[in-house]
Amino acid sequence: MTPPELDEGLPLEKIKEFSIEELLGMAIKAEIGARRFYESLAERVDITELKEKIEWLAGEEKKHEELLRKIYSNMFPDKEVVFPKEHIGPELQPVARKLHGVQDLIDLIRWAMKAEEIAAKFYAELEGMVESEERKRLMRYLSDMEWGHYYNLKAEYELLLDWEMYSHMMNVGP
Amino acid sequence: MTPPELDEGLPLEKIKEFSIEELLGMAIKAEIGARRFYESLAERVDITELKEKIEWLAGEEKKHEELLRKIYSNMFPDKEVVFPKEHIGPELQPVARKLHGVQDLIDLIRWAMKAEEIAAKFYAELEGMVESEERKRLMRYLSDMEWGHYYNLKAEYELLLDWEMYSHMMNVGP
Repeated sequence: MTPPELDEGLPLEKIKEFSIEELLGMAIKAEIGARRFYESLAERVDITELKEKIEWLAGEEKKHEELLRKIYSNMFPDKEVVFPKEHIGPELQPVARKLHGVQDLIDLIRWAMKAEEIAAKFYAELEGMVESEERKRLMRYLSDMEWGHYYNLKAEYELLLDWEMYSHMMNVGP
Repeated sequence: MTPPELDEGLPLEKIKEFSIEELLGMAIKAEIGARRFYESLAERVDITELKEKIEWLAGEEKKHEELLRKIYSNMFPDKEVVFPKEHIGPELQPVARKLHGVQDLIDLIRWAMKAEEIAAKFYAELEGMVESEERKRLMRYLSDMEWGHYYNLKAEYELLLDWEMYSHMMNVGP
């Protein structure tokens, strides 16, 4: 079941139906969504280690948004960013509910992993669509960074599945 | 050519010839080596963004060392950690020289990527060798974290290859 924090979006193969401008708009919107998701999640997590990691992810997505805005304004000077209604792949939304227990947290991290994985693949696809070597390089950068996030989340997810061990390791109560 | 900061070590398939105790000792030594490598590298880098990322990596390796020491003392109570002379895969050593230009930095990041990749594979192998589900989980955690580092470094590496763009993006001088 898809939780309220995740809007599944269009499958990756639909990417060919949009212009670079639209895809960049989607990417910027997705980075904003991811940042807000991580910020709101961090507020609801009281395991210091994990909270700090999630805040770090929020900061990373902020930097990606800024980078994408630079690329956009460089490709489409003097144009406001257009955010298409559609988006490719899952888009994260802020966590507005109270989390109950570790299972809610595990579910959200799993969805975040899914979003990071699709984002990584999305940027890899964009690499093939932009023209210059410089822009290709930036897309590879973003794709690699999202893979980095994916594995970082996967590591925490793996441990959270065994809450007894996790809470012992992180020196937190149940 | 292998630089002074990287000791290539034994190929991964030699892992079967060592005991778990020896392999954990090697892993702890490798995490210490990686931390010192990143700390010394961070001191030599004056691009703020990159310096912070490298310092972050150093902090991560410190946490891994502590986690491995916990696992070791849990498996071998009241025993001092034994550090074998041999080690599997490349081991990073502190950067003692002055770096000249971006090419030196690019080379070091490439070696660090290689060390992270082998570390990720090393922990994945260890997962198959330890007995309990808890220890397997911890090895998966470490393996995923090292993959996270690998992709994070790969992203920076990709951009550093185009120094003109990198310095422009990071707002640093040549």
